[in-house]
Amino acid sequence: MAAPTPGSDRGSWKLGELAVRFGCDLKGDPDAVVTHVAALETAGPRELSFLANPKHRRYLEQTRAGAVVLDPALAEASPVPALLIKNPHACFARIATLLHPLPPVRIGVHERAVVEPGAHIAASASVAAGACIGAGATVGEHAVIGPGCVVHAGAVIGADGFGFAPENGEWLKVPQVGSVIVGNDVEIGANTTIDRGAIGDTVIEDGVKLDNLIQIAHNVRIGAHTAIAAGTGVAGSTEIGKRCMIAGMVGITGHIRLCDDVVVTGKSTVTNSVTKPGVYSSALPLEEAATFRRNAARFKRLDQIARAVRALGGNKSATGETSMGDEE
Amino acid sequence: MAAPTPGSDRGSWKLGELAVRFGCDLKGDPDAVVTHVAALETAGPRELSFLANPKHRRYLEQTRAGAVVLDPALAEASPVPALLIKNPHACFARIATLLHPLPPVRIGVHERAVVEPGAHIAASASVAAGACIGAGATVGEHAVIGPGCVVHAGAVIGADGFGFAPENGEWLKVPQVGSVIVGNDVEIGANTTIDRGAIGDTVIEDGVKLDNLIQIAHNVRIGAHTAIAAGTGVAGSTEIGKRCMIAGMVGITGHIRLCDDVVVTGKSTVTNSVTKPGVYSSALPLEEAATFRRNAARFKRLDQIARAVRALGGNKSATGETSMGDEE
Amino acid sequence: MAAPTPGSDRGSWKLGELAVRFGCDLKGDPDAVVTHVAALETAGPRELSFLANPKHRRYLEQTRAGAVVLDPALAEASPVPALLIKNPHACFARIATLLHPLPPVRIGVHERAVVEPGAHIAASASVAAGACIGAGATVGEHAVIGPGCVVHAGAVIGADGFGFAPENGEWLKVPQVGSVIVGNDVEIGANTTIDRGAIGDTVIEDGVKLDNLIQIAHNVRIGAHTAIAAGTGVAGSTEIGKRCMIAGMVGITGHIRLCDDVVVTGKSTVTNSVTKPGVYSSALPLEEAATFRRNAARFKRLDQIARAVRALGGNKSATGETSMGDEE
Repeated sequence: MAAPTPGSDRGSWKLGELAVRFGCDLKGDPDAVVTHVAALETAGPRELSFLANPKHRRYLEQTRAGAVVLDPALAEASPVPALLIKNPHACFARIATLLHPLPPVRIGVHERAVVEPGAHIAASASVAAGACIGAGATVGEHAVIGPGCVVHAGAVIGADGFGFAPENGEWLKVPQVGSVIVGNDVEIGANTTIDRGAIGDTVIEDGVKLDNLIQIAHNVRIGAHTAIAAGTGVAGSTEIGKRCMIAGMVGITGHIRLCDDVVVTGKSTVTNSVTKPGVYSSALPLEEAATFRRNAARFKRLDQIARAVRALGGNKSATGETSMGDEE
Repeated sequence: MAAPTPGSDRGSWKLGELAVRFGCDLKGDPDAVVTHVAALETAGPRELSFLANPKHRRYLEQTRAGAVVLDPALAEASPVPALLIKNPHACFARIATLLHPLPPVRIGVHERAVVEPGAHIAASASVAAGACIGAGATVGEHAVIGPGCVVHAGAVIGADGFGFAPENGEWLKVPQVGSVIVGNDVEIGANTTIDRGAIGDTVIEDGVKLDNLIQIAHNVRIGAHTAIAAGTGVAGSTEIGKRCMIAGMVGITGHIRLCDDVVVTGKSTVTNSVTKPGVYSSALPLEEAATFRRNAARFKRLDQIARAVRALGGNKSATGETSMGDEE
Repeated sequence: MAAPTPGSDRGSWKLGELAVRFGCDLKGDPDAVVTHVAALETAGPRELSFLANPKHRRYLEQTRAGAVVLDPALAEASPVPALLIKNPHACFARIATLLHPLPPVRIGVHERAVVEPGAHIAASASVAAGACIGAGATVGEHAVIGPGCVVHAGAVIGADGFGFAPENGEWLKVPQVGSVIVGNDVEIGANTTIDRGAIGDTVIEDGVKLDNLIQIAHNVRIGAHTAIAAGTGVAGSTEIGKRCMIAGMVGITGHIRLCDDVVVTGKSTVTNSVTKPGVYSSALPLEEAATFRRNAARFKRLDQIARAVRALGGNKSATGETSMGDEE
């Protein structure tokens, strides 16, 4: 787990070399060189990116990456050189193992930070003045912990994100080469886990407060002064705005965005982006089990009940609003 | 993190000193002295308390505290001296940093307790005979672990509770000066977290069994011989009765009370007090995703569907019971 | 916590000795000998089993165990010798403390495994070549970690399962004498917990990928190449097939079976076996809190709404399907 050496000879690769090594067809100059991996939106001319999900094709069309790994069907859509292969995600995963980002400049534990016995700080991590790392907590490779942060016992910052590309019915590990960046005055609760980014970083902005047993997946960004209660999970690449209040045991799916000043009540499920500040819920309240079971059985036929009401003329007679959900 | 010295000169403060230091108006005798913080209901004549939530005004009216920190609007309701300030919770948090409770009398690890390698026991904690603390577990400052308890690997007992007072769009940490008291023959699962009290203690009574990855927040009380399965979370100040059985991944909100002998089924959400023994549920069962989505879309219009049925005369023709929920 | 000595004098017990020691009536030969405990379905002629739940009576009728612990009411149903007592589960728990399975043959950490500082490997555990055990992770007694596995920081493998038998209003611990067997190339996320089996083992098959903060209870089996996202919990004795994809924060109840190639979406609740590959859900989507509360209030009367629609003739007029759930 040693940090990659900056400027190593094998820190840069020609596209022709990569195409041969990984069995890709090449569209573009075989002597063009890439040195790092990066996301399509941010990659520059020496960086390699990829596109696996055709829904993100617009990012491909605007990319300024040095090269991209693509399905052959998308070759024409790429404005830059492309390594073409049937499973671009898996191939990219393999290439990324050769192209790691450099470690952050200042590493080590500041003399005015407090590290309790039994905490584990990776050699390439950075812990700033005034930070306190609790007993048994782990700060992983390249993680950056800002001034005044409190990391409670058992928290794990910077473990590998959960990234696997399917290939032939098995899972190929996607190297997790990003890091975790934690701002100033952040509090991280006991046994909470914050994964390092896959490409790019997982970012916890200034003043964020995270309770216990929270999961923050790779490439998530939590906006400044947002507070999250215990047991909540945020899946990969989701962005949460500033000053949000997320209650306990909320599940937030990946690749969405919550705007600033959103409040989510306990145990809710968030599967879509939220674009308007306000209070949101989705957890049914408790009932006696027998009653709940009866109602839940009806829920399984709710669509049919609604159709029956409509057939009876209920749609017309409902005052105020006329829809019962058919359009959804 | 050294324990406060009993009898220190700065263990007692005059109300006048506090008012000047923290910018409060003072109602009452400036020479009156307080030495500790405590909850409104239990505070005695040398203890300082506060009221942030007007819903708890009845506790203020009956308090026997030495003084309270209050919003000026509530000054007249206080039967005792009051420090008046716009944000009493934040001000109280600051004052509490000066007024810590004393450590429990007997500290240290009993010679007949077993502490596995890599467990972290704070200097001011107490571990009784026959207790077993697993590898990598953490027992925090002032925590008390009773005879015969088993604390599994990775459990964190006595981390700071999640207490922050909002002030100017940021979060001010509320010092967590209470502790965790664990009775006899309690079992605490792997990676479970039990926070220390904010004021007063978090209490786990005799014979309680807690599975893995459970979160018990500050000032919670779990009644004797209650069993809780993995992944459940209990928010702050909630009280659970004796002999309850709480299944896995249940979320229980803060500041409520479950009576004795309550059974809650898996993944339920508990947002109100439960006053009658019985079995309770709130989690919908699994369906094929396409069917579930159709029904969930109708759920979003359920209020309108019910209104339509009522307009059609459905309310009258429903046999047995006549209500469809309008009164709620 | 020393491993039991194979072939020890006290490794075998006569049924007559056990009956006297634990206060049972005996049906059968007092000189018959048992050496281990096992489940009814798999127990052989030297193994002791038990039946607590009359629903599983068919297993009793087909058992080939050396003896069983039973409620006297079931004595006639047993084809093998029986120790008869009112609370067979509690009695069995006591007997199992005398009859432990032997440790696996090859113990210790292979010289080509990587164990990071602060990881705790029990003396009787086995860690194969190429496995990597993260900082602060715990591998318990008799656990077996296969080649190429990655165990992230804070994971706890092999803690006691959550097994307690009720007796006189208290909980009697059921000894957890099984282990955890982890196949090849398994990834286990940070702070995830996998409990050892009660009787028999908890098994994670080859190529399984487990994210952070997951709970796998005793005697669960996870099929090869299944991936499970963060925060999900699987209760005791449940079996999950191969190549399943279980999203985050899903709760899966105990003693059920999911077939191969099942996909469960985030935050779902799985309370019954799934016998058909496909995609399944049960979590309601987010709404503005006020709207959600109105709909949730109607949900509490959904059974009555459905009855009202039926009384209005809605059942007949619903096209396509005719049922609204009454039969459930």
